[in-house]
Amino acid sequence: MKDITTLILPDIHEILADGKAEGLREALADLHPADVADLVGSLEDPAKVQVFDALGDFQRVATFEHLEEDDQEHVIGLLGRGRVVAILDAMSPDDRADFVKAMPERTAETLLPLLAQAERNDVRRLVSYPEGTAGSIMTTEYAALPADATVAEALERLRQVAPERETIYYVYVVSSADRRLLGVVTLTELVRARATLRLEEVMHRNPITVAVDADQEAVARTFERYDFLAMPVVDVEGRLLGIITHDDVLDVIEEESTEDAHRMGAVEPLDVPYLRAGFWSIAYKRGLWLSVLFLGEMFTGTAMRHYEATVGQVIGLVLFIPLIISSGGNSGSQSATLITRSLALGEVGFGDWARVFRREAAMGIVLGGFLGAIGYARALLWNTSFAMATVVALALVGVVMWGGLVGSLLPLFFKRIGLDPAVTSTPFVASLVDVVGIVIYFRIAQVLLLR
Amino acid sequence: MKDITTLILPDIHEILADGKAEGLREALADLHPADVADLVGSLEDPAKVQVFDALGDFQRVATFEHLEEDDQEHVIGLLGRGRVVAILDAMSPDDRADFVKAMPERTAETLLPLLAQAERNDVRRLVSYPEGTAGSIMTTEYAALPADATVAEALERLRQVAPERETIYYVYVVSSADRRLLGVVTLTELVRARATLRLEEVMHRNPITVAVDADQEAVARTFERYDFLAMPVVDVEGRLLGIITHDDVLDVIEEESTEDAHRMGAVEPLDVPYLRAGFWSIAYKRGLWLSVLFLGEMFTGTAMRHYEATVGQVIGLVLFIPLIISSGGNSGSQSATLITRSLALGEVGFGDWARVFRREAAMGIVLGGFLGAIGYARALLWNTSFAMATVVALALVGVVMWGGLVGSLLPLFFKRIGLDPAVTSTPFVASLVDVVGIVIYFRIAQVLLLR
Repeated sequence: MKDITTLILPDIHEILADGKAEGLREALADLHPADVADLVGSLEDPAKVQVFDALGDFQRVATFEHLEEDDQEHVIGLLGRGRVVAILDAMSPDDRADFVKAMPERTAETLLPLLAQAERNDVRRLVSYPEGTAGSIMTTEYAALPADATVAEALERLRQVAPERETIYYVYVVSSADRRLLGVVTLTELVRARATLRLEEVMHRNPITVAVDADQEAVARTFERYDFLAMPVVDVEGRLLGIITHDDVLDVIEEESTEDAHRMGAVEPLDVPYLRAGFWSIAYKRGLWLSVLFLGEMFTGTAMRHYEATVGQVIGLVLFIPLIISSGGNSGSQSATLITRSLALGEVGFGDWARVFRREAAMGIVLGGFLGAIGYARALLWNTSFAMATVVALALVGVVMWGGLVGSLLPLFFKRIGLDPAVTSTPFVASLVDVVGIVIYFRIAQVLLLR
Repeated sequence: MKDITTLILPDIHEILADGKAEGLREALADLHPADVADLVGSLEDPAKVQVFDALGDFQRVATFEHLEEDDQEHVIGLLGRGRVVAILDAMSPDDRADFVKAMPERTAETLLPLLAQAERNDVRRLVSYPEGTAGSIMTTEYAALPADATVAEALERLRQVAPERETIYYVYVVSSADRRLLGVVTLTELVRARATLRLEEVMHRNPITVAVDADQEAVARTFERYDFLAMPVVDVEGRLLGIITHDDVLDVIEEESTEDAHRMGAVEPLDVPYLRAGFWSIAYKRGLWLSVLFLGEMFTGTAMRHYEATVGQVIGLVLFIPLIISSGGNSGSQSATLITRSLALGEVGFGDWARVFRREAAMGIVLGGFLGAIGYARALLWNTSFAMATVVALALVGVVMWGGLVGSLLPLFFKRIGLDPAVTSTPFVASLVDVVGIVIYFRIAQVLLLR
């Protein structure tokens, strides 16, 4: 992907040095806006302006939409106010709202009044939907017609709406009175239908819709289930408010996966790529969780002080501490990962807790027993006593099972009480398991070794 | 999503009990095939057959495509051979190939000869592409025309090709001689263009393509970048072999995210949902990594035996072992997570290792210093000596930094040598860090406490 830009960059630089606008125009005409955006990101300021000048109207807007948020702001500063307003007016409504939301309030206050009334209201409405809801990712650019319009009229409308956009693959049929959504016709069906038919004769009734306040992750799941290119977003009364398109869903899925991955790794989610994120922003997002986990892990010391006498009597116990508690942590990580991912994909729910519990209890016996056997052999090889080896083996069974149970049930419980199950991160579970693991280990040791 | 099926299920059961085929047909007609598939999955065998009988031809095929793989096999056994062949013939080529790949060889051998020659060859070719490549997710159902065809001819072709499918949004323009891909025209553009224009006059030249042996994850990245609905797949000579559609990409992205999440949690990726996966299959996929990690973690014992004398002299050292090594593991998890996810998204590469190294070294000082300060205070509160508190603080700085460096550089290195960076899972990094963490801790203790 990066190849395209790297391949073309030397040519572009040469053309820029020549200063021939015509050559630049030709070189850029065949490029996809995503590639032009990459190119713009890599150029010096005057060259950025040259490139934007050379682009056709539609390509200019599309390129701007593909820029990273901070590059967008930077380019706004470079281009004249007139051109900026032209770009904003022509942007797709959802991208425009995202851009306005991302810019500092002062910039927004100077730019918004320059927009036409309709676009301004549109932005205001779109930015008002809470982050993470269907409303926050929908666009208001779609084709809607009354039920008695004909196929020919619908095709004609499609020719007019956003002529350079590719997002219009469905025509939504709404009631003239209150814009309630009645049905949907695909572009392919329109092309295939007789021109004189009325839309109500060809439309699918009761189309599957998304509520405007639905969670964006649920929206993504619905897309995956039904393979639509776009889905209509409606309010509680069933009135059409906008549509969500397939490309926005791709972004949502990646965003949610990244968030979950970061949480599982005990980092507050970074909303920008690692190398673009500020050092102190990362330090804060890691330090926060590191400290929480550190404070939790302190209880391992407390637990061990409680068993100080035991440790003093059987110093060999110490050798197995990391081995035993880490095995519990690993088992906990595994089940936390499996359950959290299944929750994200909607494969399990809180109602499955009993099944999960039974499964993990059995799994703990099997896996713990297996590790216990290895641990038993290892302990004997270190010339420890049979009693000591037994302590190690039993502790492993207990700790591995405890880890699996905590790791699997905690995410279910978090989901139930409305918290993100992904915060039951691998290190979080490991810390919990460490403390209890020490107690299990020393308790067994006390019973078996110090009778 | 599940709501629809739950809402409709009682009605369907009533209709099934009545045994009126007409009523069933009507009730099912409005349902999306994904919902009918869910319904079929929840019914008894005779009812499954009743439902399949009541479906229209296209809905029957689409429903079958939406069934889970084991349900598909089950239904094949219930329906007569004639109807099975009709379904297989009409399935979309990629779904059919996936189905054939998933079924036992014996079933495939009895079914394949019943297919028409063209479909059989198509299946053979599609199943031959290695899992995880563009070829393995592409379909061969697309519209391709020579460059001198007219817009009207193209629209007519679209009316004929797969009349009930919605996947045809692009017409690909190929050379008549060798099917080399010359350009692409979108359906929207066709609808808008004058009917008499030739395709070469309206097509986009040099369309962005995907190589047939490209990794499916790279394909997903290309989709995200360019927001296409479908992308053409070509061989090394640029000949059109098939297309990949947006809905397949959604599946790829979820699949890859799940795989990465599982690997990061130290589980061999499950290819079926947690509750559907067999107990022993999970036990194997967890046990494998648990054992590997367990064997690695054994070196903590070896390391501690090396410092047994030190432990004997300063028993208080033991209290801080879990606290110190887990902090290193947590820091390692964090950077491993950040880097692995960034690698998956193509945001960093091996070439960035020096930047990553500097950043993580600095991060280690900051975060380690912060935890060290807390640890120092905590140690003093436990009435340990100033020297002992200093050992704890210094060890924390060293271990947190070591964790961050290992966690960030190891995934980069794994990627470089062609391994999946996600296998540098959180527990994997933690184990590595544990052993070195113990060495760092006791070494510092020897120097500061036993002089």
